[in-house]
Amino acid sequence: MNATPIPTPTPTAEADLELDAVVSALRQARQDWRASQQRLNEAGGRELPSAEVLGSIVDGLRGALFPMRLGPPELRPDGEDFFVGHTLHTQLQALRGQILLELRHAARQPGASEPAEAVAGHAAALTRAFAHSLPAIRRLLDSDVQAAFDGDPAARSVDEVLICYPGIAAMIHHRIAHQLYRLGVPLLARIVAELSHARTGIDIHPGAQIGPGLFIDHGTGVVIGETAVIGQRVRIYQAVTLGARSFPVDAEGHVRKGQPRHPIVEDEVVIYAGATILGRITLGHGSTIGGNVWVTRSVPPGSNVTQASSQQVCEGGNT
Amino acid sequence: MNATPIPTPTPTAEADLELDAVVSALRQARQDWRASQQRLNEAGGRELPSAEVLGSIVDGLRGALFPMRLGPPELRPDGEDFFVGHTLHTQLQALRGQILLELRHAARQPGASEPAEAVAGHAAALTRAFAHSLPAIRRLLDSDVQAAFDGDPAARSVDEVLICYPGIAAMIHHRIAHQLYRLGVPLLARIVAELSHARTGIDIHPGAQIGPGLFIDHGTGVVIGETAVIGQRVRIYQAVTLGARSFPVDAEGHVRKGQPRHPIVEDEVVIYAGATILGRITLGHGSTIGGNVWVTRSVPPGSNVTQASSQQVCEGGNT
Amino acid sequence: MNATPIPTPTPTAEADLELDAVVSALRQARQDWRASQQRLNEAGGRELPSAEVLGSIVDGLRGALFPMRLGPPELRPDGEDFFVGHTLHTQLQALRGQILLELRHAARQPGASEPAEAVAGHAAALTRAFAHSLPAIRRLLDSDVQAAFDGDPAARSVDEVLICYPGIAAMIHHRIAHQLYRLGVPLLARIVAELSHARTGIDIHPGAQIGPGLFIDHGTGVVIGETAVIGQRVRIYQAVTLGARSFPVDAEGHVRKGQPRHPIVEDEVVIYAGATILGRITLGHGSTIGGNVWVTRSVPPGSNVTQASSQQVCEGGNT
Amino acid sequence: MNATPIPTPTPTAEADLELDAVVSALRQARQDWRASQQRLNEAGGRELPSAEVLGSIVDGLRGALFPMRLGPPELRPDGEDFFVGHTLHTQLQALRGQILLELRHAARQPGASEPAEAVAGHAAALTRAFAHSLPAIRRLLDSDVQAAFDGDPAARSVDEVLICYPGIAAMIHHRIAHQLYRLGVPLLARIVAELSHARTGIDIHPGAQIGPGLFIDHGTGVVIGETAVIGQRVRIYQAVTLGARSFPVDAEGHVRKGQPRHPIVEDEVVIYAGATILGRITLGHGSTIGGNVWVTRSVPPGSNVTQASSQQVCEGGNT
Amino acid sequence: MNATPIPTPTPTAEADLELDAVVSALRQARQDWRASQQRLNEAGGRELPSAEVLGSIVDGLRGALFPMRLGPPELRPDGEDFFVGHTLHTQLQALRGQILLELRHAARQPGASEPAEAVAGHAAALTRAFAHSLPAIRRLLDSDVQAAFDGDPAARSVDEVLICYPGIAAMIHHRIAHQLYRLGVPLLARIVAELSHARTGIDIHPGAQIGPGLFIDHGTGVVIGETAVIGQRVRIYQAVTLGARSFPVDAEGHVRKGQPRHPIVEDEVVIYAGATILGRITLGHGSTIGGNVWVTRSVPPGSNVTQASSQQVCEGGNT
Amino acid sequence: MNATPIPTPTPTAEADLELDAVVSALRQARQDWRASQQRLNEAGGRELPSAEVLGSIVDGLRGALFPMRLGPPELRPDGEDFFVGHTLHTQLQALRGQILLELRHAARQPGASEPAEAVAGHAAALTRAFAHSLPAIRRLLDSDVQAAFDGDPAARSVDEVLICYPGIAAMIHHRIAHQLYRLGVPLLARIVAELSHARTGIDIHPGAQIGPGLFIDHGTGVVIGETAVIGQRVRIYQAVTLGARSFPVDAEGHVRKGQPRHPIVEDEVVIYAGATILGRITLGHGSTIGGNVWVTRSVPPGSNVTQASSQQVCEGGNT
Repeated sequence: MNATPIPTPTPTAEADLELDAVVSALRQARQDWRASQQRLNEAGGRELPSAEVLGSIVDGLRGALFPMRLGPPELRPDGEDFFVGHTLHTQLQALRGQILLELRHAARQPGASEPAEAVAGHAAALTRAFAHSLPAIRRLLDSDVQAAFDGDPAARSVDEVLICYPGIAAMIHHRIAHQLYRLGVPLLARIVAELSHARTGIDIHPGAQIGPGLFIDHGTGVVIGETAVIGQRVRIYQAVTLGARSFPVDAEGHVRKGQPRHPIVEDEVVIYAGATILGRITLGHGSTIGGNVWVTRSVPPGSNVTQASSQQVCEGGNT
Repeated sequence: MNATPIPTPTPTAEADLELDAVVSALRQARQDWRASQQRLNEAGGRELPSAEVLGSIVDGLRGALFPMRLGPPELRPDGEDFFVGHTLHTQLQALRGQILLELRHAARQPGASEPAEAVAGHAAALTRAFAHSLPAIRRLLDSDVQAAFDGDPAARSVDEVLICYPGIAAMIHHRIAHQLYRLGVPLLARIVAELSHARTGIDIHPGAQIGPGLFIDHGTGVVIGETAVIGQRVRIYQAVTLGARSFPVDAEGHVRKGQPRHPIVEDEVVIYAGATILGRITLGHGSTIGGNVWVTRSVPPGSNVTQASSQQVCEGGNT
Repeated sequence: MNATPIPTPTPTAEADLELDAVVSALRQARQDWRASQQRLNEAGGRELPSAEVLGSIVDGLRGALFPMRLGPPELRPDGEDFFVGHTLHTQLQALRGQILLELRHAARQPGASEPAEAVAGHAAALTRAFAHSLPAIRRLLDSDVQAAFDGDPAARSVDEVLICYPGIAAMIHHRIAHQLYRLGVPLLARIVAELSHARTGIDIHPGAQIGPGLFIDHGTGVVIGETAVIGQRVRIYQAVTLGARSFPVDAEGHVRKGQPRHPIVEDEVVIYAGATILGRITLGHGSTIGGNVWVTRSVPPGSNVTQASSQQVCEGGNT
Repeated sequence: MNATPIPTPTPTAEADLELDAVVSALRQARQDWRASQQRLNEAGGRELPSAEVLGSIVDGLRGALFPMRLGPPELRPDGEDFFVGHTLHTQLQALRGQILLELRHAARQPGASEPAEAVAGHAAALTRAFAHSLPAIRRLLDSDVQAAFDGDPAARSVDEVLICYPGIAAMIHHRIAHQLYRLGVPLLARIVAELSHARTGIDIHPGAQIGPGLFIDHGTGVVIGETAVIGQRVRIYQAVTLGARSFPVDAEGHVRKGQPRHPIVEDEVVIYAGATILGRITLGHGSTIGGNVWVTRSVPPGSNVTQASSQQVCEGGNT
Repeated sequence: MNATPIPTPTPTAEADLELDAVVSALRQARQDWRASQQRLNEAGGRELPSAEVLGSIVDGLRGALFPMRLGPPELRPDGEDFFVGHTLHTQLQALRGQILLELRHAARQPGASEPAEAVAGHAAALTRAFAHSLPAIRRLLDSDVQAAFDGDPAARSVDEVLICYPGIAAMIHHRIAHQLYRLGVPLLARIVAELSHARTGIDIHPGAQIGPGLFIDHGTGVVIGETAVIGQRVRIYQAVTLGARSFPVDAEGHVRKGQPRHPIVEDEVVIYAGATILGRITLGHGSTIGGNVWVTRSVPPGSNVTQASSQQVCEGGNT
Repeated sequence: MNATPIPTPTPTAEADLELDAVVSALRQARQDWRASQQRLNEAGGRELPSAEVLGSIVDGLRGALFPMRLGPPELRPDGEDFFVGHTLHTQLQALRGQILLELRHAARQPGASEPAEAVAGHAAALTRAFAHSLPAIRRLLDSDVQAAFDGDPAARSVDEVLICYPGIAAMIHHRIAHQLYRLGVPLLARIVAELSHARTGIDIHPGAQIGPGLFIDHGTGVVIGETAVIGQRVRIYQAVTLGARSFPVDAEGHVRKGQPRHPIVEDEVVIYAGATILGRITLGHGSTIGGNVWVTRSVPPGSNVTQASSQQVCEGGNT
């Protein structure tokens, strides 16, 4: 077993870096990789969306959605609409640029059907559709804020929830990412989701369908898969997984993409920390799933699932 | 069950964004929210503290507490006091501004008792009290650094611990946040705690009372609740939860705030990764809690708690 | 038990901060700490490496390793080598500066053997050796990207994997950190590892030996210890721990450093989320370890390890 | 005669900076100055406007006045009004803050009549008045651009004129500064004028009254005094001075402020490079003043003023 | 005569800015201007080059031309070529973008002949031609540095000259601007020239043809016109003008563009401060022109031109 | 006469930049230059001081000299000494670095006498001497501010003078530059002087000796030479030159450096705009020099020098 096949470097007394050799060897490595990927004739620049750019777009949209809370500190009510309009104008242009990069990337793939000349119009249309969904996104996020305030006895005000709860930060990202996913730019959606993951430790696939009023408390380690469906007013604690049991394969053993494989969580379910819910099962309306429980079969509405037994064993003290 | 009630956007060939309509709809959404929150007459600017500002205050205080390790690289010993004094002067003024924002926000709430004209003096007094607790905070943090160095065989020096251990970064934030919490500015305290959570994956409520010499190793996924009490020289590994079992309610079913509901961890306890400790129970002096264990009852001093049985099952190989 | 031994601050009406007193008390706290560490005569500046500087070095190297994907957006193929050469020239000089700081720090420790005048040449030699290992690092990272693409049915292209998977971000950091660790600058290596931990929630000790094609999915909460050895094409999910069972001690009870104490994971093993693997055991070639399983004994090749029983209990609904 | 009364510094071998002594001596110097200015009890912070802040306000207003030429590159016509509104909202708030600082400073002077509590309302009213004069300022600047285009045979387009002629940059600053001067905030006006002076080498006192269509070509060294009056479509070249002959004094020999003491330049006058026009004289409509001419008496309309004789003397060659 | 036709603003007690009205009035002003310029149907974004972008291109090229003196401080000789190549790659791409903007702007003018689809190729070709003239520009600048060192007794080294003489800064800008002018992008050339003017007070039209070894000392107020021709090893002091006497007009009185109208200065001429040289005259080889002299006729080689007489008059002392 | 010997670039249809050829030709140009300067074996990095670094040092010192006027806006009186001490600590370290670069550069010149190992101590001693002259510099600058306030009827307060008069900005730079000049680091001094020149259009050689209370009004185009001596309470207007008549040469015709060659201006002299004073002459105490006058002989105390006659000629109007 060869764990780290880099030859042991031998430091010499020679201080010259001999960068030319390193540059050549790196070029060779790139060429080998491109050959292995059948991409030998790559021309043009970096044709891919940028996480940095998307990060600043999301930050801009965040301010436009909640101007007096997450916008610039000097904003006053009589300047709100100017700020919102200017910010959207700027950020949506940047977003159109990123959408264009993804559509062009897709159009270059073997088997792609979109003609290159249609891409610009397509990008503009998607941007417009995204823009017009922002008011609905704002209303959904309001429901999430209300849910967090209602669900956490420690919350003192809806403003505190909006400003500092990581679960809300995750939902702002997700509701934007999910809309991008639905519009057909899954790479942008994924980048936004990973930005959220890095900032909050909460990993929600942009494909997940989440109803109003989701409250994720603490959040670190939560994983929600691509085909999960979550109803209204659901509450989830840290380290909960809504995962797939296995990947459905077809007769030839190829993974069948897009098949529903993650749980359905009905309205008003509560899932405590560390619970693992796997497969296309349904947690019925109003059920409670206890901490650290492992669930792989559907449960009816109103269920209360806990561990089979306490595993606690106290061995005597050390005296 | 309606998971994502945003109407499916229909991309059209129309490139014009029609931003005016989006701006109007967003304004309507804000007004509906404010109406739902009885906040129709909001005037003035963003009256809430800012996570960005608090982040830079904490970074400044970090440098003032450990000038030769976390201050500016060009600092020399003969400039230490000037640097510390100037940094405190600057950061504490900024902190007073944030305290003022929180106190004013509190004074605006229905039922608030503090007269508006008393707020500025109150903010100044709190800032001064906070300033004078910094030396004690520094000494506590020294104990945490020493504990991490003593507790981790891989640690090569106290400097390494201070510079790169996430557990120490979390304690710097917590000891600042906890002091703010005790002084009566819980929103600032919470923001600082969430900054720490985002940076380290360690989620300590600012209300938690933690004695000297806490060492949190690895740390990702640790959650410590508001009324937890931790003694001296305790060691905690990743993904440990010190949580509440349930929320105490009064006769009318209202949650009773501020009731002790999280564990007491006595001196020199060690809690291994993934353990979950729930409710107002006590882990006696010097006890050891094994990995992934679920504990909901007090254990006497010197206990050694492990899982009931090994769950390991080896099914035969596939040859 | 004294949890927070800071005297309760008493806010007074006095607005003057009396910063002189705070500055003095902080100076006294520093002096006490230095006395406790036998460092009374400290002169010179901050002699330690800087996490900020290393963060920007890693970002620079990332771009030099993958110029058309993670380099500047305006880069075109005919400028690749200039960009790579210039970036390496700049970043490797900065790296040499950080190596120098660590070597000098080490040379100041009691019992250090390297003469001060040899340090500069040593730093240059290490930098050169590191530079020449970059092509091999790039090839290893290509194998990781390919593995993630092959292992995740949701991945649409290798570019998506490279740009947004946290598991890849963690491997870029680790393969750089591991090389620094092997070259004898463990503090730099640790800082790079903690940067990765903060960004991805994945905590890999820089000493861990990892073969080509590791795919860490989701990743939050993964911990991989210093002496772990991982073969080729291994797949690991979130919250997996490859940890030590206990610290080996010698006859006098001192921890024996550097002893192998973490698992060996052979080629093509898959470890599902939340599994805990402890001690110097071996997971045989091609084994599968189920979610949340606790493993403390070696398993033969081709094993399939799952939990002993389902702990799922459904208590009836609440009507 | 004592030209530089600093004692010759004597570099010593002593490397310690002894900063404490320097800091003390600087404090003493400040106290002596404040004593000499009867300002011993100064409290509060820096109560004066800031050149940096005004610089960025002017840059912002420049963009709001000419959004598609001097605004952000990514602006599109359908976002113009949002940009203009948002920029004005932001910059005018900042301007109000600066106006407040000047009014408060004035109110603190001995003999000031404005009650302190009236200052905030006064500042708001001035800001509003300034805001509503911006459209007229834009129209005046359009006339200046047109005049420069008409007057310079080298100009290729009005856009070139707007983007790069220093004379236009000077007029943008002046028309803003003059409005501030008229509104009663002369210190702000002066700061804006000096920003222009530093950027263009053109020194126009904010009090100067300048009609539409002024074209200053090249510009370096132009000085236009406080009470100068300039008509329409005037053209001025580099190093021209419109200055005062002497300061009018009253019976006690005190300078009488605000007396007209600079030239009146009627419509369509041209003044060539280096000409010096001094005193409250009038250059009649349509006159031409030659290069380097020194004028201290009024000239009738249609005059053509040149030097008395050519001073050119050719002394024989060097063979 | 109407000097400042803005109605006197009347500050009111009304604090509301009424920004909507200002925004509308500014929109109307823009529309009136566009109507007056026959530009009613303007679409698209800001189609003009940007002074900010060109400023940073020039700064980049400056570093690429003199890497070890004006490049980044950390550069070492073995990284020079990588730095130069990478910088050129980046800056020349940016320059191509600016050239494209100017060419497109020109192609939109009435009567323009270049078809829109040819513009991109044209821009690329111009960029390439510019790139290949950089080595010759560097050699010319070396001659200027040498001339300044030779001509100024106060100069201590060629490095001092290169780093801090404004005359050299002006020549770096001019030699770049002149090349852009020759290539047919006069707007870019003019912007670069005005950047130089703002930074140094030296105003050289990009059309001026200047031989090797020009030394401009002090420099403030120097003006050199579009068709001026300057030979080798010429020396010019502050406030010297090489200007036009009058604009040549054709039979209909229209200015005839591009006609030679500025002086020819032959090799090794010296022109002292404040001299004014006007018209298409020739200053013969090796001549000396005294300070403040006004020259409007050609002078033969070897001439020595001074003022006709000293104008100095001493009126008696003050007793 | 060969004005611009760059071959006319021929734009081709070829879009490839062929950067390799440009990089090679630039390398060749550098090598030719270094050969011509006998600097073929240059190793190491950029060994020269940096204008950028000195610019920020001067800005820092400016704040430390006038903390409540030019320091950070948030400064309060009780933090002044901390700010001053910290700023000096930081900026003087940076200054020591720049001094070191100049001393090392000097030590490398042929004929240099300072041994390389003495340079670091020398730099520290110079820095210390400079530090201890700062209080005297502050007092001199106070006299300049007072003089400007007294001398300009338009000045409303000493604060206005300090904040926005270019003459004061020039004196802050000059008094710092002159001290550096006296301490033996003329290159640093010159760089600071040129920063001032670029910012204000006032060009004062750092060698000029200037007594307390100099007021330079307007300032653009003022030039003051290296050996000029200026007494107390002198007033100078724009475009005044205090220059050299000719360079003194020795028997072999070599320029003799350091010889007094610029004017002596005694106390309370006033020099109006555009006057040119040349050579080592003396303007006696209390004299007045009129605008545009050319003076090359000493004048006794109390003189009043004006132009011989008015050159004004009015030719009749053009009708």
